[in-house]
Amino acid sequence: MRSGAGDAVEQGYLAIGSDGVEVRVRRRAGESTLTVKSGPGARRVEEELPIDDRRFSSLWALSEGRRVSKIRHLVPLDGGLTAEVDVYADALAGLLTAEVEFPSEEASGTFTPPPWFGEEVTGDPRYANQSLALHGAP
Amino acid sequence: MRSGAGDAVEQGYLAIGSDGVEVRVRRRAGESTLTVKSGPGARRVEEELPIDDRRFSSLWALSEGRRVSKIRHLVPLDGGLTAEVDVYADALAGLLTAEVEFPSEEASGTFTPPPWFGEEVTGDPRYANQSLALHGAP
Repeated sequence: MRSGAGDAVEQGYLAIGSDGVEVRVRRRAGESTLTVKSGPGARRVEEELPIDDRRFSSLWALSEGRRVSKIRHLVPLDGGLTAEVDVYADALAGLLTAEVEFPSEEASGTFTPPPWFGEEVTGDPRYANQSLALHGAP
Repeated sequence: MRSGAGDAVEQGYLAIGSDGVEVRVRRRAGESTLTVKSGPGARRVEEELPIDDRRFSSLWALSEGRRVSKIRHLVPLDGGLTAEVDVYADALAGLLTAEVEFPSEEASGTFTPPPWFGEEVTGDPRYANQSLALHGAP
């Protein structure tokens, strides 16, 4: 677990190809990465390359207008599960999402969300970070 | 100077953003890189990251249909100049380009191309590698 203060996450999209390949840079807790991901439907490819601060700053400039800033909190839940709670900032201020990874399909099926979770948006593409960066909050 | 056999260059575009930011992978003489370049008109940014063979193979798969293969020869010219002669392969077989970098504007202005250079295409965007990869030979 991280501290209650959470991690600042800055994520900016450099390019999104016509077939959905996305290239983004991200800084979290002082570590920066460049990530290339295949588009939907394609055989899944995801490569994450560590980059230094100078490269992050240089590339960040290319993501203007396609950015997401948020604070990620790790919140313990019953049954040993953890929720990743993202509190969005800047243009997305007011949006808050929670995500839980389950050890199995069964654990997912029997999970009862705590009352503070709010509306279910799993599978809603408008909440993908790429969509939030390009189109704003739904 | 490299040997007369030239260097095989394989270049594939991962994503080209709506504002022209391009992300490509390249393998030349056993060295692989991932390059991010700003689009035309923007403040120039270019970052080249070395990547290992595994990452190159993984990312290369995402460039299908957006590739250029060529052999680059370095050909000495009069006056200490060097021509980079690219002999394209695969879908671009038959295309050959020569490029000379000059130490000054003046040297560029007084240069007389050798007879084998053929048609002048400097500044013709159809011969940019991105365009050749996406649209084929003009």
